[in-house]
Amino acid sequence: MEKNRLEQQLEFCLEIDKEKQIQRQTYLADGSRKENDAEHAWHMAVMTLLLSEYANEQIDVLKTIAMLLIHDLVEIDAGDTYAYDETANATKSEREQAAAQRLFGILPEDQKKWFRNLWEEFEAWDTPEAKFAHTMDHIQPIMLNAASDGKSWVEHGVHLEQILKRNARTAEGSAAIWEYAQKNYLEPNVKNGRIIN
Amino acid sequence: MEKNRLEQQLEFCLEIDKEKQIQRQTYLADGSRKENDAEHAWHMAVMTLLLSEYANEQIDVLKTIAMLLIHDLVEIDAGDTYAYDETANATKSEREQAAAQRLFGILPEDQKKWFRNLWEEFEAWDTPEAKFAHTMDHIQPIMLNAASDGKSWVEHGVHLEQILKRNARTAEGSAAIWEYAQKNYLEPNVKNGRIIN
Repeated sequence: MEKNRLEQQLEFCLEIDKEKQIQRQTYLADGSRKENDAEHAWHMAVMTLLLSEYANEQIDVLKTIAMLLIHDLVEIDAGDTYAYDETANATKSEREQAAAQRLFGILPEDQKKWFRNLWEEFEAWDTPEAKFAHTMDHIQPIMLNAASDGKSWVEHGVHLEQILKRNARTAEGSAAIWEYAQKNYLEPNVKNGRIIN
Repeated sequence: MEKNRLEQQLEFCLEIDKEKQIQRQTYLADGSRKENDAEHAWHMAVMTLLLSEYANEQIDVLKTIAMLLIHDLVEIDAGDTYAYDETANATKSEREQAAAQRLFGILPEDQKKWFRNLWEEFEAWDTPEAKFAHTMDHIQPIMLNAASDGKSWVEHGVHLEQILKRNARTAEGSAAIWEYAQKNYLEPNVKNGRIIN
């Protein structure tokens, strides 16, 4: 028997519960444990509510939040790829495309397209919303790393050069927030040696 | 020295990281551990994106999502109050008012008012957005409890009567979703004895 619309939607809602088990490399602010993708998405969504005024270009806040809420869902199948793991990053795109196909495919056709397009817009990094979403995606872990005395940076022996390379486009979403992050989160941790210069 | 606007906002963004440590009584769908408030909020926000079409009255989706993203922040100070713990529920309101005062007080005046009003609107349960947000807040744990073979219901020896009392107003946000939940999540678990009749 074919599933009706609400059944498909709630099957998807249940399936995405798995995002709560995708661990990231970033520690909570108090360093007690690593955070997961669902917590990360929630955190960035609240930050977007508060910080959208700093976007370089005007953004549609609901669209940006929707993008941030769902952009890591593909990791349910594809796993979290650590920003500084070059081997894993080589196969990331292929693994995530397959994941998007399966996961968003649980939804009714219209919502499948909507979520898939939102995810692809995020990945393409072209629109004001995608640019701001990437700024959030990069600033949130930097804020937490700084708060936890650079725990994740120290563990991975991260160099300033790597962080700056990864954040080469972070200012495109918000120059003001990137400037603040450099001055308040990165510079002190370069000075005290938690980020290798 | 007085903090500037962005400093206040990012101080709040860091402070709310603590919501990830507020454990709820609901287990993840696979029963492996209990979920926390941040995960719960993320889950409901995505559900609202997908299910707003079932709201009894038209809702402002961004406002509803904002409400859901922040409505549990007060638990950072006040703790999670289990739905069926009558003693704790007696002092809940007082504890949460003090928490709202402190937490939202970290924000610039305009955003403090905005978040405080959103939280109070949720609590007042009067507007279409607040009604739909409550529907999500009640349906999401029921969905997870059903998926985890009623683990939390069984542990607490929950009676159907308690669930129905707690959900006396759930249909006000969405009659269709409440009907689905009764038929698909509650009835089977009453039949198999995981919910006490």
